[in-house]
Amino acid sequence: MANTRFNIAPISTDMDVALQEKIDNKTKPLGALGQLEAIAKQLGQIQQSLEPEIQKPHMLVFAADHGVVAQNVSPFPQEVTYQMVLNFLSGGAAVNVFCAQHNVPLRIVDVGVKSAFDDHKLLSKRKVANGSRDFTVKAAMTEYEFKAALQVGFDEVDRAKTAGSNLLMFGEMGIGNTTTASCLMSCITDLSSDSCVGPGTGISEEGIAHKAKVIEQTKLRIKEDHPRALYQKSVADLDVQLIAQECGGFEIIAMTGAMLRAAERKVAFVVDGFICTVAYLLAQKLDENVRGFAIFAHESQETAHAALLRYLGVTPLLSMSLRLGEGSGAILALPLIESAALFLKNMASFQSAAVSQEKA
Amino acid sequence: MANTRFNIAPISTDMDVALQEKIDNKTKPLGALGQLEAIAKQLGQIQQSLEPEIQKPHMLVFAADHGVVAQNVSPFPQEVTYQMVLNFLSGGAAVNVFCAQHNVPLRIVDVGVKSAFDDHKLLSKRKVANGSRDFTVKAAMTEYEFKAALQVGFDEVDRAKTAGSNLLMFGEMGIGNTTTASCLMSCITDLSSDSCVGPGTGISEEGIAHKAKVIEQTKLRIKEDHPRALYQKSVADLDVQLIAQECGGFEIIAMTGAMLRAAERKVAFVVDGFICTVAYLLAQKLDENVRGFAIFAHESQETAHAALLRYLGVTPLLSMSLRLGEGSGAILALPLIESAALFLKNMASFQSAAVSQEKA
Repeated sequence: MANTRFNIAPISTDMDVALQEKIDNKTKPLGALGQLEAIAKQLGQIQQSLEPEIQKPHMLVFAADHGVVAQNVSPFPQEVTYQMVLNFLSGGAAVNVFCAQHNVPLRIVDVGVKSAFDDHKLLSKRKVANGSRDFTVKAAMTEYEFKAALQVGFDEVDRAKTAGSNLLMFGEMGIGNTTTASCLMSCITDLSSDSCVGPGTGISEEGIAHKAKVIEQTKLRIKEDHPRALYQKSVADLDVQLIAQECGGFEIIAMTGAMLRAAERKVAFVVDGFICTVAYLLAQKLDENVRGFAIFAHESQETAHAALLRYLGVTPLLSMSLRLGEGSGAILALPLIESAALFLKNMASFQSAAVSQEKA
Repeated sequence: MANTRFNIAPISTDMDVALQEKIDNKTKPLGALGQLEAIAKQLGQIQQSLEPEIQKPHMLVFAADHGVVAQNVSPFPQEVTYQMVLNFLSGGAAVNVFCAQHNVPLRIVDVGVKSAFDDHKLLSKRKVANGSRDFTVKAAMTEYEFKAALQVGFDEVDRAKTAGSNLLMFGEMGIGNTTTASCLMSCITDLSSDSCVGPGTGISEEGIAHKAKVIEQTKLRIKEDHPRALYQKSVADLDVQLIAQECGGFEIIAMTGAMLRAAERKVAFVVDGFICTVAYLLAQKLDENVRGFAIFAHESQETAHAALLRYLGVTPLLSMSLRLGEGSGAILALPLIESAALFLKNMASFQSAAVSQEKA
């Protein structure tokens, strides 16, 4: 079972000067490749190399169900989690199409879908429970379940690393999981429930207000269940692991574990949309050193995502009004990340190409 | 020699309902693929197909010199245009690296570089003149030269179309060409010279103010040279072809010709950064029907680009603080455009995957 203390070395800055000099000597105006330059430098830092390379990128999609759907927070019925996993396995979802486009192996990890699956070559059967419990009435998971879900993420990263991958993309599927993610975000950051919600798969204004109310009620419920918290100003003062257990869900915790393990093993990882970024928020609260290994793929249309990215102080690569999840934004960003590594490796320098530099 | 009347059929909307229905029935929440959905629909419209495909995308980089460099508008010496073309030919520039990444053939078109080149398999030698004239003192080119530059774009598109391409990307190289583009933008749109300038390859605040002043002087000079315009409110009332001849430059006019010809031949094209978008502005003023064939790659860091995109009422795919030109933003956007075509073709529908739709 995963420990909740992690062994992540902070990113080394030893090569920063050499990396920046190499970037600045490429045949282009200073800084003209914008965000690609920052990604190139980050990859160089992670790999401690002036020629970082992306090797065998893998996509891991974690799926689980959420008890909070009992509160009528999604326009889709709960069985869609199960049906979409089957869709992933038969190759019909967006993430399948984009992974096939970029020749990226895809693995679907059942961490807590309510229904059982037959064996399938793309499926990792690691169900911790048949869905998390409804967090409006009780804790979403036990400490044991939390650690088990974290361990799933650890194991999947170790498997991909053994297969030779040095860049991992994470995605998720779980009807109701924007509400879970919003609740986690509000509890951890202490931002108002209103600023942590959005339309998810497409609910109305009233539905969004309802989600905010569900989160408010949950925060009161958590305070009542933890008398220590009653003497404190807010749920955000609670231990972050406890908040995670209270809110869930299994696929989110598994992604958090995967991010922490990737960082421990010096593997870069791509953060997808809102739910994935909440998993990252949790990872960063558990170990700040995870930061240097995260590449943020996109700002989604889910309203709270912009606020969360601002809270984290990060700028993602894309902003294309996506709100699909399942790692789709991460895989769309992959060619840009590869472009960053490639320009650093293969572009000529002013010297090698005999191109004049700026006038003094 | 190219005519300046064009034969562009407006985009057919005959398949719009069927295209939208197909997009909406994919296994994802309505609209969840954001801008990719708009691109998928546009490709379907252009190809009049429910399964549009990107075939043999080509990159064409047009290069020319600009007489306005005499006004000290660039931090780089003029010979860098020539040197960068040699860099393109030997594979060392950003656009080479990204074209190689995506297996896209690259062709460099000399429309007006000051120095002569030896033959090279990647080079199309179509020099109209040894650079445009300094537009602060006289017209950048004659009508004959304008039409010759337009024809270069026509011929290059015909060549790529014959090679089987149905998606073209255009880029440019020319020291001083952000000033030319800013001058064209200000003259055509009547926006103030201040709002049409930016740092280009990296000049200072003073340098930017100097560029604005150069453009103001040029607008006065054009009015003086065209007494008809003196009775009119602004240079923007002049014929757009005349403005183009006054300001230049050859690579910009060649791109304009390429865009118009692509639209005539029902080939989609990708608009790169600021300078390329000014070429598009000119194309749209020459024939409004070009609009349906243009895919906008990115919003660059060149300050005026945002204003120009707003003026055109378009939203590009990327915004990564790029400001390199040479088609680099267009080629970076290519995998996203391919993703749009692929999801439309290959994703399962709710029916085919037996996934439940939204609750009533």
